[in-house]
Amino acid sequence: MISEKMKGLVRNNSVIRQMFEEGQRLSEEFGPENVYDFSLGNPNVPPPDRVREKAVKLLEEEDACSLHGYMNNAGFPEVRSKIAENLNRRFGTAFHSGNIMMSVGAASAINCALKAILNPGDEVITFAPFFVEYRNYVNNYDGVLVTVEPDPGSFQPRLSDFEAKISAKTKAVIINNPNNPTGVIYREETIKSIAEILTRKMRELNTEIFIISDEPYRELVYTDTKVPFITKYYPNTMVCYSFSKSMSLPGERIGYLIVPDEAADAEELFAAATIANRVLGSVNAPSLFQKVVAECLEEKADISFYGKNRDTVYEALKNYGFDCVLPEGAFYLFVKSPVPDEKEFVSECKKERILLVPGSSFDCPGYVRLAYCVSHETILRSLPGFKRVAEHYGLKGSGV
Amino acid sequence: MISEKMKGLVRNNSVIRQMFEEGQRLSEEFGPENVYDFSLGNPNVPPPDRVREKAVKLLEEEDACSLHGYMNNAGFPEVRSKIAENLNRRFGTAFHSGNIMMSVGAASAINCALKAILNPGDEVITFAPFFVEYRNYVNNYDGVLVTVEPDPGSFQPRLSDFEAKISAKTKAVIINNPNNPTGVIYREETIKSIAEILTRKMRELNTEIFIISDEPYRELVYTDTKVPFITKYYPNTMVCYSFSKSMSLPGERIGYLIVPDEAADAEELFAAATIANRVLGSVNAPSLFQKVVAECLEEKADISFYGKNRDTVYEALKNYGFDCVLPEGAFYLFVKSPVPDEKEFVSECKKERILLVPGSSFDCPGYVRLAYCVSHETILRSLPGFKRVAEHYGLKGSGV
Repeated sequence: MISEKMKGLVRNNSVIRQMFEEGQRLSEEFGPENVYDFSLGNPNVPPPDRVREKAVKLLEEEDACSLHGYMNNAGFPEVRSKIAENLNRRFGTAFHSGNIMMSVGAASAINCALKAILNPGDEVITFAPFFVEYRNYVNNYDGVLVTVEPDPGSFQPRLSDFEAKISAKTKAVIINNPNNPTGVIYREETIKSIAEILTRKMRELNTEIFIISDEPYRELVYTDTKVPFITKYYPNTMVCYSFSKSMSLPGERIGYLIVPDEAADAEELFAAATIANRVLGSVNAPSLFQKVVAECLEEKADISFYGKNRDTVYEALKNYGFDCVLPEGAFYLFVKSPVPDEKEFVSECKKERILLVPGSSFDCPGYVRLAYCVSHETILRSLPGFKRVAEHYGLKGSGV
Repeated sequence: MISEKMKGLVRNNSVIRQMFEEGQRLSEEFGPENVYDFSLGNPNVPPPDRVREKAVKLLEEEDACSLHGYMNNAGFPEVRSKIAENLNRRFGTAFHSGNIMMSVGAASAINCALKAILNPGDEVITFAPFFVEYRNYVNNYDGVLVTVEPDPGSFQPRLSDFEAKISAKTKAVIINNPNNPTGVIYREETIKSIAEILTRKMRELNTEIFIISDEPYRELVYTDTKVPFITKYYPNTMVCYSFSKSMSLPGERIGYLIVPDEAADAEELFAAATIANRVLGSVNAPSLFQKVVAECLEEKADISFYGKNRDTVYEALKNYGFDCVLPEGAFYLFVKSPVPDEKEFVSECKKERILLVPGSSFDCPGYVRLAYCVSHETILRSLPGFKRVAEHYGLKGSGV
């Protein structure tokens, strides 16, 4: 009875979510302390105290009808102004409220951006490995996802492959920086090169191509590396942001879309995205949390916690002989599978009640994703299991 | 630069929203007390006190990581169980948590239901007049909206026209009860007839047809008329509910979808709707408000307030000579335009700073919609303006 498009999705129901639910089942059987669930990007650091304080204050002091009522589909104007001002202060941009559409998280912002621009058959390029849902988002609007291989080892995009894949059908490029699942940050020179290639290709092909910059991990950076703010390098950029990770509010579904004045047909594009917000059924971002985040823009969750996890799990896995790149941002570690079929590796880890996501879910087989946004104790308790898996595969690590 | 599908939408940007924004502009110019904005269904009755109390309690006492964290895309299991139990107690149904998917309001639930079942070209029937967005929702999945004329005067569906419009392409029927924009309630005998027609047609055509029952106004009823719970009359029913009106929380985007066990391929259908929730970008209903509404299921906003408004505005307009049907539910009055082109009537009212929505927005030209979910004072202050408009058109009312 279900639609053709959904049949495939129901069959291959997101591996990530299946793992999440399997983790819950194992927790019930063995106790949560004996399951090491690294499958989902569900923050384990509480939101800043100010989030609770401001939410309570708004509930107790604001007029309830307007606090919980409808507003413009783009969000409360004063919230959008505060976000614009905060971005301008931090990144030297020149946004105003008319550039900011509040959204039901970054996922919804990406959907609104794609619905605003895609005609059937239009191509959207992204860089592997990538967040598995991009393919579904593009497919929602009958677009075609085109993927660019990474440089092996560094997981930076291969720009020659990127340029070769741009065609007259290319309508957008999705960039996820810092990257899920690798934790890699695309540097300023990479973004500059991407902008140059796109500008040249647009002239050649007489088209407009948009960058959709998916930035839920912007604030989660453990080094001095800067995450370039792409609107400054390329005018046709739409930024999709979420407070899910920076403020540990993934369940509240609060984020925004930026359409800068410099983008082609910016005003019409912003209107289209806002109408998409309405007709896709979100209507508007949740009203209380719009006002909460606007009061907390200088805050972020204590990410030193993730930094400590990152160091511990990276050091340990390297010591056991696993091959992985030290992530600079986000809260994922991308680990090379000791055997070609990483699903076998995932199964082997599951015997130790360690839950990981196969890289094939990110268009990058041969690797697995480990989400280290868990308690530090979970990391520590999982390490003997990782050591046994390393021994099982005969890995020769410095510490084995 | 925007997609073909969005071009039309941007051009005809929802008349309702335009009015809303025009109302704000007039408010700034003339002062809010001198603008009588009846254009939008934005509740003016505050949520029950318990909503604030429970929200504050949850914020202060629950673990913040799980309160604001991800959960199954269908929502928190305990929230879904409580809703199922509440429905079972009130309507004699037999739902369990596996039948309930929490959603970003009813609009998102309808989108998830449609995405789950529609293939391009599939037809969806609805009864005019209807909520303007249905056409856009169906168009999101390349379906075709087919409309059934109402019985003039009563605004009940013409069942002969309904039966004639069912074809092998018919995949779903959207029913909105109580109805926006008329306030009419479809009675048990109507629902029984619709169920009989559909059952017969499904056998004839060897298809499955779903009822999508859009019920944000279920709790807003001013008479003893019962709003039939359609799953009890027709197994292939998906119910889309929202707490927007019953608890005055439209900005919070909290509702649910019901897929009963008796529906065709129920399990697969529920999975498809839940995946649709994820891939359309909502991911899950806002987490705090899932828990809040679960604690407030016995509550509703004080709708006697709307009842008082209904009586006042209906009596006054009848007295001035306007033609309208006394609404039994929702918070809309559907008024016959004194001139064939209701947009002219809308313009005439705007001169009195009275904002109404033309019936052509609901596929029912010749009428206008008046949303009386405003302060009682707004109703009272608007009446002299309505009287002048009646005089302008030479209406002969009992009180003019």
